[in-house]
Amino acid sequence: MLDCASMKVNIEDYVKAALKEDITSEDITTNAIVSPTKEGLAQLICKQTGVVAGLDIFAFVFQLIDSTARFETEYKDGDFIQRGTIVGTIYGNVRALLTCERTALNFLQRMSGIATYTNECVQVMKPYKTKLLDTRKTTPNMRIFEKYAVKVGGGNNHRYNLSDGILIKDNHIAAAGSISEAVRLTKEYAPFVRKIEVEAETLEMVDEAIEAGADIIMLDNMSNEILKKSVDRIGDKAKTECSGNVTKERLKELCEIGVDYISSGALTHSAPILDFSLKNLKNLN
Amino acid sequence: MLDCASMKVNIEDYVKAALKEDITSEDITTNAIVSPTKEGLAQLICKQTGVVAGLDIFAFVFQLIDSTARFETEYKDGDFIQRGTIVGTIYGNVRALLTCERTALNFLQRMSGIATYTNECVQVMKPYKTKLLDTRKTTPNMRIFEKYAVKVGGGNNHRYNLSDGILIKDNHIAAAGSISEAVRLTKEYAPFVRKIEVEAETLEMVDEAIEAGADIIMLDNMSNEILKKSVDRIGDKAKTECSGNVTKERLKELCEIGVDYISSGALTHSAPILDFSLKNLKNLN
Amino acid sequence: MLDCASMKVNIEDYVKAALKEDITSEDITTNAIVSPTKEGLAQLICKQTGVVAGLDIFAFVFQLIDSTARFETEYKDGDFIQRGTIVGTIYGNVRALLTCERTALNFLQRMSGIATYTNECVQVMKPYKTKLLDTRKTTPNMRIFEKYAVKVGGGNNHRYNLSDGILIKDNHIAAAGSISEAVRLTKEYAPFVRKIEVEAETLEMVDEAIEAGADIIMLDNMSNEILKKSVDRIGDKAKTECSGNVTKERLKELCEIGVDYISSGALTHSAPILDFSLKNLKNLN
Amino acid sequence: MLDCASMKVNIEDYVKAALKEDITSEDITTNAIVSPTKEGLAQLICKQTGVVAGLDIFAFVFQLIDSTARFETEYKDGDFIQRGTIVGTIYGNVRALLTCERTALNFLQRMSGIATYTNECVQVMKPYKTKLLDTRKTTPNMRIFEKYAVKVGGGNNHRYNLSDGILIKDNHIAAAGSISEAVRLTKEYAPFVRKIEVEAETLEMVDEAIEAGADIIMLDNMSNEILKKSVDRIGDKAKTECSGNVTKERLKELCEIGVDYISSGALTHSAPILDFSLKNLKNLN
Amino acid sequence: MLDCASMKVNIEDYVKAALKEDITSEDITTNAIVSPTKEGLAQLICKQTGVVAGLDIFAFVFQLIDSTARFETEYKDGDFIQRGTIVGTIYGNVRALLTCERTALNFLQRMSGIATYTNECVQVMKPYKTKLLDTRKTTPNMRIFEKYAVKVGGGNNHRYNLSDGILIKDNHIAAAGSISEAVRLTKEYAPFVRKIEVEAETLEMVDEAIEAGADIIMLDNMSNEILKKSVDRIGDKAKTECSGNVTKERLKELCEIGVDYISSGALTHSAPILDFSLKNLKNLN
Amino acid sequence: MLDCASMKVNIEDYVKAALKEDITSEDITTNAIVSPTKEGLAQLICKQTGVVAGLDIFAFVFQLIDSTARFETEYKDGDFIQRGTIVGTIYGNVRALLTCERTALNFLQRMSGIATYTNECVQVMKPYKTKLLDTRKTTPNMRIFEKYAVKVGGGNNHRYNLSDGILIKDNHIAAAGSISEAVRLTKEYAPFVRKIEVEAETLEMVDEAIEAGADIIMLDNMSNEILKKSVDRIGDKAKTECSGNVTKERLKELCEIGVDYISSGALTHSAPILDFSLKNLKNLN
Repeated sequence: MLDCASMKVNIEDYVKAALKEDITSEDITTNAIVSPTKEGLAQLICKQTGVVAGLDIFAFVFQLIDSTARFETEYKDGDFIQRGTIVGTIYGNVRALLTCERTALNFLQRMSGIATYTNECVQVMKPYKTKLLDTRKTTPNMRIFEKYAVKVGGGNNHRYNLSDGILIKDNHIAAAGSISEAVRLTKEYAPFVRKIEVEAETLEMVDEAIEAGADIIMLDNMSNEILKKSVDRIGDKAKTECSGNVTKERLKELCEIGVDYISSGALTHSAPILDFSLKNLKNLN
Repeated sequence: MLDCASMKVNIEDYVKAALKEDITSEDITTNAIVSPTKEGLAQLICKQTGVVAGLDIFAFVFQLIDSTARFETEYKDGDFIQRGTIVGTIYGNVRALLTCERTALNFLQRMSGIATYTNECVQVMKPYKTKLLDTRKTTPNMRIFEKYAVKVGGGNNHRYNLSDGILIKDNHIAAAGSISEAVRLTKEYAPFVRKIEVEAETLEMVDEAIEAGADIIMLDNMSNEILKKSVDRIGDKAKTECSGNVTKERLKELCEIGVDYISSGALTHSAPILDFSLKNLKNLN
Repeated sequence: MLDCASMKVNIEDYVKAALKEDITSEDITTNAIVSPTKEGLAQLICKQTGVVAGLDIFAFVFQLIDSTARFETEYKDGDFIQRGTIVGTIYGNVRALLTCERTALNFLQRMSGIATYTNECVQVMKPYKTKLLDTRKTTPNMRIFEKYAVKVGGGNNHRYNLSDGILIKDNHIAAAGSISEAVRLTKEYAPFVRKIEVEAETLEMVDEAIEAGADIIMLDNMSNEILKKSVDRIGDKAKTECSGNVTKERLKELCEIGVDYISSGALTHSAPILDFSLKNLKNLN
Repeated sequence: MLDCASMKVNIEDYVKAALKEDITSEDITTNAIVSPTKEGLAQLICKQTGVVAGLDIFAFVFQLIDSTARFETEYKDGDFIQRGTIVGTIYGNVRALLTCERTALNFLQRMSGIATYTNECVQVMKPYKTKLLDTRKTTPNMRIFEKYAVKVGGGNNHRYNLSDGILIKDNHIAAAGSISEAVRLTKEYAPFVRKIEVEAETLEMVDEAIEAGADIIMLDNMSNEILKKSVDRIGDKAKTECSGNVTKERLKELCEIGVDYISSGALTHSAPILDFSLKNLKNLN
Repeated sequence: MLDCASMKVNIEDYVKAALKEDITSEDITTNAIVSPTKEGLAQLICKQTGVVAGLDIFAFVFQLIDSTARFETEYKDGDFIQRGTIVGTIYGNVRALLTCERTALNFLQRMSGIATYTNECVQVMKPYKTKLLDTRKTTPNMRIFEKYAVKVGGGNNHRYNLSDGILIKDNHIAAAGSISEAVRLTKEYAPFVRKIEVEAETLEMVDEAIEAGADIIMLDNMSNEILKKSVDRIGDKAKTECSGNVTKERLKELCEIGVDYISSGALTHSAPILDFSLKNLKNLN
Repeated sequence: MLDCASMKVNIEDYVKAALKEDITSEDITTNAIVSPTKEGLAQLICKQTGVVAGLDIFAFVFQLIDSTARFETEYKDGDFIQRGTIVGTIYGNVRALLTCERTALNFLQRMSGIATYTNECVQVMKPYKTKLLDTRKTTPNMRIFEKYAVKVGGGNNHRYNLSDGILIKDNHIAAAGSISEAVRLTKEYAPFVRKIEVEAETLEMVDEAIEAGADIIMLDNMSNEILKKSVDRIGDKAKTECSGNVTKERLKELCEIGVDYISSGALTHSAPILDFSLKNLKNLN
């Protein structure tokens, strides 16, 4: 469940903006057909099997427009739901039900798609100690929803953004001249609280990162063989994170190599949606 | 190319919000490593073959932070680009290059993913008169980018939102009691400029929609057989749009049935990204 | 009644902005005089005879500041009210009543002024088939209120803005080179949902617009004679809209010529207000 | 000329909001017809004789979208312009010219309408010492433009809003119990900088206001006879302001009675627009 | 107590922004530890003796996140509270209590610090007629809170900002060429409602200000001797305000010289906070 | 120097809001006196000896209103400046100079006050390994400026906000039941990147924190004796941070005890400003 502070401080504005995107002046079709005082209900149907995420957001969209709207459901975020399930019933002003339908579903289908895809990866990794991480490869202005969906699916969050973690990547190393100089500069600049992660693409870079005192070494785009050598060489001197070309198929091999973390951009940038629809609207007055 | 008015009036705010999402206080890593007056360049590399969309947005992200940044490229939106191509070079303040990299790529990869997927569909449909349409099943707060990407890929835009078109769907018909009543109410409510589209799921509903004077009839979730009968029955009395279960595989069959339009939510909600990266950063001072 | 979605998504922000415009730090006079816990009532008096529009907005202004405020009235938008009528009573925190008074009246008086003027025109046009339309000549940042007031007064809305309709005007024709080229380009650019309207100032332009396949032809600034010829020539080939120099006095003549629509900028840009005041404040505790 | 600080701090946001109101996604007509790199010009024509106000705002609308746009004119705010005059030429990107045309004109026509109407009043009052004031009866979210237009027309501004002046009106007196108590409370609450104005509707109230030490007494809705007696009774003890039923016709009489100020809501709430149009668009490349 | 209009129109946005500043994605510590449905309480403890200001703001921070939160207290703004006092108890969702704690305290401690410091000055000035004023030397984006705290502490507010008062300072005089020219220009520009204040640093400037007809003369950075001469010379011709080098120590001397007002920037820019903490959190379910 | 991304993404909005706070409609005094096209200069004078911080922000305030304004100075943030120094000269539109003066100084004086106070602490601590940290006890909506000023003064930043670090405080421990449970829950919730800090007030709590595996232990409100014992007991098992009752006087003792970090809320919440003024305005045309 998303917390009350995020709901008010961050999410309300995104939801309102999404509704504005869909309503310039008014919902002409609905306003033409439905009287303003009509109350009713509609059912949320799951049209694909998967892990649901975003039920609170789904309900919140309607409640932003009709503060008396309520969503009744026996399910919660993280539940695995079969295709065809009636997930719940939304009650409220009929104009609000019709006008908010698509925006509410757009959030839910995307978040559930990410949770479902993440969960498929997590299932593969279950026998291993390796943990699955997301990345900053999220859809613009959707990060808070997408990172939450990764957690619902059983994954873990890497840093949220550029301000809450240090990750020295290839272009930073190019700018600094060397890994050791980059690490030295970041330690000097931000001596407190943060762990320092360094991206390495070769064994030489791995050695340099160890030497420089990185807390975490990201092993990027390596073959399984080089990856294995890197993990062995690093040992307890740092945590290891594997990234690049992480397909669902390759997950098992990577886990067996023994990296601590695998990070995958695909969780947020390429998961297809999980399909839902709102059906069976009934007037109640 | 996105127009100057949209850039200022709509897109600037989204881009700024996306950067804010990625920068709470500062980009710690970059600011630790790079001096504020360092100038440089980096190359945009295409890592998958497909249709590029969003090059102006890509450049705009950097320019919002460094007004002197410039992007040199021989490509334009809609071009088909091979994996491994150096798409262009971005010049500017090195801090800006590093800080904006991910946000710029997040826009570009998503927009190009949609354009590429759309274009694959459009290629299938080329021999036929049927036109491809998008839907309102877009990512929240990304509609302006995603609908534009559909056009870049060769598709066409259905209505932009609830305020600029009338589309009477199943739940509206339920609310109104019948198709004819729903059509009557919308004609009375909005007598000017707009065409009226009605969703029909059966032949009976098709007949009722024709009778009611719909301008466009959306044939939703029909078997090919019923679809064919519907199209024949409608003839010139209305335009026909087919939606629901529209997979790339089924496109050819649908075109052969002779519908005027096919609308596909997958264009915007389930296209995987097209991968790009920013590489080879070089300091220039 | 304005719908709940517009209230939340669009109108709340405008009303809050209007209150901000009137309150930099605080309402000094009121706060000096009235204790923060004082409850009371005041009466809304109509000071000119006309059609009321905006009663929900009037109440909403007070409710935004005092969520317990309530407005009791027997009237609704569209009612014809005589000068001197007590339209209703607003109850709430006395500070809120005094502080919001002017902003609430500013919305109400302007919206009612537009509804009244529109209604005077509509009365003249009643015996005819011709429908009255508004334009985009609205006060900046007041369009949603002003277009709603036109409907309350019995008029109809032309397109809401530049994004939900195609209207090829003189400067567009100049840019395109000819009417036929302009129509061709818009059909190609936006093949779905929209009707295409073309402005014509001469019979030659009317002919060209018919030829190009315009759905609606706007007959702009024509003499009655040329207007009549244009309407005859167009027949059933397109809808006709008359605009330019549309005074209340000339309405009857235009209707008799048989145009389908008359559009008038004066409805929104030059209607004088309908005067209201808030009187007889009483403390209730 | 509006000052640079207001332009940036207040006006830019209103202008951007007005453009957003007119552009949801894009200007379809213009984008269909005009290539993004086309440059051109168009002429601003005055269609009614009057006082122009808002030329900087007119130009600013275009410049917000096209930063290279420029407006060439020999006129400035406050000039009296004859019907048919070519007021100036706007140069810039043709898409920007067409897309911004209506918004730019909507500001200009309303501001010039107010300046013209104000000036007509000011002309009548010229032989007298009495000064003309505006009120807070402005269009919501247009106050900064409308109060400026009053000054351009030769009028003066009363307080800007509830926070920068003290004006004790009928409902405040009702809340406080008496004029003297209301004045006492406001003096205690805000002892510095501000003058205190009190509304009086009868001679008794005038006496009480003088007694209480009001700096300005607003003589509201009085007959000429009572007004005259009030002015005589007040003498030098306070400034006098006359309000209520102030028609252009009655101005002369009021001035002759010798009030210091006349305030008129009609200046901002009921002035008809001054008509302008943008014509003769020419492509320059 | 801050009024309801300011709370909604101005303060809500600042409080929300302050919470956003403290929460990018979520309060990780709290969300990890506390279940979303946990209810509880915590005590507000005063850790330094002084005058409390901002209790409504303190409570409002929690209520913005948890609309059911309530703050029980026997104290009100302006009360003098001893170190160690339990000021009150806040009840609500435990996540909200923990997440909002610091932001709520940051407002309260700063506002109470200003009220306490102001009150110390006011105590010194009590035997005299001289009134204490604040200035515009406030913390950016905190003016509404800081000026309110000055009043709670017993001080008075000078003008709120540049738009609600005229104060001709040294640089204005330099720009105008002379005091008399500056006064003439401001009287011409803004003939209504406002008093005109002029800054003077020498006896010559005092004379010129009197001559020009200033309503208030600010005696800036003068020695006690010159100050005395100025006050004598001005007599009843204008109000006098003393500013510059106003330390708590010097207040008594300044009062004895007989100036009408003393303004002190230190009230808002250099008062140390009054320390509070939130303690003894208890779960209630 | 503040980086270009923060300037655009975060700081511009705060500066614009601060200017709006100071300008409701216009700067009446300035606009009355100065013609809109007047160019000029003014000198920035330091009126107290200390460390300057915020020179870029100072200049940026003017540049936001007058894009051609430029600030010439030989100093940079962090420089120690003597009372009476002419810090630099600001050139630009005279209206902009006068209107922005106070807002620009309000930022500069506060930031420099913090830098100066921080630097005084840092000087005391120089002989020791202990590093000085700030806290989240910042002025609402000023954190980005205040944390930057701490760095300019030679201090270091603790976590920026609730989302980028884990700090388990007394109320969290109360909510969780014990330190070990609290640590366990946070490790489970956020397994990646973050270090975990725990607040301890007694030796028992210190032991429990060590046992639980805290990365940093905050020793809160301890006597020097207990503090010493805690530091000894912790040894290399965690980093140590001392907080509570940290006065400038006590800094030396704390350093000698050997804690790794000292955090001080006073840096941001109670530092008095460093006084600057803008003087000697000269017209240049």
